[in-house]
Amino acid sequence: MQHVVVIGGGFAGLRVVRGLRRSPVRVTLVDRTNHHAFQPLLYQVATGGLSPGEIAPPLRWVLRKQKNASVLLAKADRIDVEAREVHVRTLDGDRTLRYDHLVVAAGARHSWFGNDEWAPFAPGLKTIDDALELRRRIFGAFEHADVAADPAERKRLLTFVVVGAGPTGVELAGQLKEISVQTLRSEYHRFDPADSKVVLVDAAPRVLGAFDETLSSRALKALEGMGIEVRLGGAVEKVDARGVTVGGERIEAGTVVWAAGVQASPLGAQLAEATGAELDRGGRITVGDDFSLPGYPEVRVLGDLAASGLPGVAPVAMQQGQWTAKSIDAVERRRAPPKPFKYHDHGSMATIGRRRAVAHFGRIKISGTLAWMAWLLVHLMYVVGFANRVLVLVRWAAAYVAHGRGERVLSRVLPRSDRSGATPPADHGHEVPHVG
Amino acid sequence: MQHVVVIGGGFAGLRVVRGLRRSPVRVTLVDRTNHHAFQPLLYQVATGGLSPGEIAPPLRWVLRKQKNASVLLAKADRIDVEAREVHVRTLDGDRTLRYDHLVVAAGARHSWFGNDEWAPFAPGLKTIDDALELRRRIFGAFEHADVAADPAERKRLLTFVVVGAGPTGVELAGQLKEISVQTLRSEYHRFDPADSKVVLVDAAPRVLGAFDETLSSRALKALEGMGIEVRLGGAVEKVDARGVTVGGERIEAGTVVWAAGVQASPLGAQLAEATGAELDRGGRITVGDDFSLPGYPEVRVLGDLAASGLPGVAPVAMQQGQWTAKSIDAVERRRAPPKPFKYHDHGSMATIGRRRAVAHFGRIKISGTLAWMAWLLVHLMYVVGFANRVLVLVRWAAAYVAHGRGERVLSRVLPRSDRSGATPPADHGHEVPHVG
Repeated sequence: MQHVVVIGGGFAGLRVVRGLRRSPVRVTLVDRTNHHAFQPLLYQVATGGLSPGEIAPPLRWVLRKQKNASVLLAKADRIDVEAREVHVRTLDGDRTLRYDHLVVAAGARHSWFGNDEWAPFAPGLKTIDDALELRRRIFGAFEHADVAADPAERKRLLTFVVVGAGPTGVELAGQLKEISVQTLRSEYHRFDPADSKVVLVDAAPRVLGAFDETLSSRALKALEGMGIEVRLGGAVEKVDARGVTVGGERIEAGTVVWAAGVQASPLGAQLAEATGAELDRGGRITVGDDFSLPGYPEVRVLGDLAASGLPGVAPVAMQQGQWTAKSIDAVERRRAPPKPFKYHDHGSMATIGRRRAVAHFGRIKISGTLAWMAWLLVHLMYVVGFANRVLVLVRWAAAYVAHGRGERVLSRVLPRSDRSGATPPADHGHEVPHVG
Repeated sequence: MQHVVVIGGGFAGLRVVRGLRRSPVRVTLVDRTNHHAFQPLLYQVATGGLSPGEIAPPLRWVLRKQKNASVLLAKADRIDVEAREVHVRTLDGDRTLRYDHLVVAAGARHSWFGNDEWAPFAPGLKTIDDALELRRRIFGAFEHADVAADPAERKRLLTFVVVGAGPTGVELAGQLKEISVQTLRSEYHRFDPADSKVVLVDAAPRVLGAFDETLSSRALKALEGMGIEVRLGGAVEKVDARGVTVGGERIEAGTVVWAAGVQASPLGAQLAEATGAELDRGGRITVGDDFSLPGYPEVRVLGDLAASGLPGVAPVAMQQGQWTAKSIDAVERRRAPPKPFKYHDHGSMATIGRRRAVAHFGRIKISGTLAWMAWLLVHLMYVVGFANRVLVLVRWAAAYVAHGRGERVLSRVLPRSDRSGATPPADHGHEVPHVG
């Protein structure tokens, strides 16, 4: 049987694998992680509202019933398009996978606009690891503020800057405000968490640039109504351990989050070099109408790695994945190819806070409670697995009713003890042992 | 107002703080972590059944309504009983806390019987960090086995050894077997997860030594019925990166878990040195009937740090905490002290697997489905927070019906990429970005 290798278990790659479940091929899905992260809800993991597993089921579990698919935990290092081989790094050393069809859906990572030295001070939010790191920083900042002796330092620690006013940035800014005003309201005695400051910055002249101006200005109003400081039109000039400089102005901040640029996976550059295909400024590779590499019809590039002229959003990746599965199936069954790919834009939405959201579906624009409920419903629908859907619903209900954000365990927040010695993961607890 | 300092937010410490909620004192709870870990369910976090937040609510949240209590995230480094001061390390440097009453409930950590060099190869299970490390090892072992080229190495990776056949060891062994036989059943194609081996070892002649012989032998039968290899009467002689030696025999293993000895917090030794109080072999400190240090009635030592002659289990710690709060309250209100402390043993229980458990309540001994349901009910009752109780119930139902263990996100399992360069938390994902 022909072997289809899919690199990347994101929205595009997973849809290709699922779409091939009845095809006369065997499929190998290669991913560096063991899970499919639902990126649109990562910010809720970062802000303690959800646990990682609720939005990131194991790829093996998602595909457990698909007999013709197997999962390989590995990093794709290099593609040899002439030999039709992918060289991967596994937990047990390097391996080579031969393919008949290759789907490269390795996605994108953050780009600090050429300033990679900013990365440690302004981490992004693309993976579960990113979300957990951000969670540690956010709740760690409040803990740090609690013991800060210097009022100016406390003020700095309670300042959160979100760079990038797209959906992720807007949603994150909203959650940060809700954390300080609602979730932590009664939890600190030495300061009022509501005094914390959330600043949302973007070089563009408006928030949610991908939305139309009406919704964009409604979102701005909602953000400002919540007490978020929105600074538009000024580019980030510097990020360091103590804050950011934006449009010539310095903002001292304890936590900076990067929700701005993305850069396609380096596999794109490697493929371009090997095949002469063109790369755009974001590192995306130019592909044909059927997502194939020019001159290599058996290699398809999807999702964020492809310069498709479409926005880098989940629905685009999913539809590309579904179409590509059909296309590979047609090749294998020697049938006519599917109708040319056409993206069906079902609309866009972004949530800002409690009963605050904006959405447009075709020409219909909505905002406020209705848009917020639509957002909840659509996102709940896309959570993978029945149990996870119930769990997310319980979490959201608890957050709505009691402002609860239960996933707030801080790991290794204090400097390592000098006397904990040999204990491998630092033993931070003071707990007593087992119930009999 | 008099100042009560409580070191440790475990079962004992938290009960002291809660018990003082109506007392004319102010209370400071010092803990190295920001949460109260419900240790009896840690093994379910380690095996992917529960998320950390579900069993470890933030201490600040638990105490949010208690006006006379505040929480300090800090590590207690040293106690000066003469000056009545605790020296702590915070996120913002060292601080000194003056106290009028001090409660030391810093608990215990693992002890490798004087072989601390075993710790990295056989981590324990006392904290959320421990549980997450163990989770990484367990599910990482299956991923590693999936790519192992050498059959002997695969067999080793699929061998799990649990050292210590107390409740934690027995419960963990049961879960490990259920993971391989049920949860992962259809998830691997290159080997059968059910071929994995779980070995439970203890130097004692029987499992669950704290239970009576009937229940102990029923538990043994249940374990063996599940396919767990139980090896009793042989001491662990060596643990290294590739396995353990028990009773003269070598077991090659990919994962070894330490559920055996405990050692009281080093604060005990420090207090003993300063006051001349006696320490027992486990590092526990000898206290009076009212848990006070000889000669220092204002200093109480509770829970696992106290040589009380009672077992190191949660109910003991909780009852000691409640009694101590009453005792401090009586001192402050200049009332008669409470009746002398008496431990009320309501029974013990341990679960082994689906509908397999043992329990005794006074002279009543039960096992099987009834004991298992009692175990579920009691543990659910003790989960802190209504939302968490609902979440745990949903998780358990999903596990029972569909063998699901949803919290299986593996972090940073592959060696760091050479090209990921500046990206701070290693960016492992291949995901595509944001839904519009």
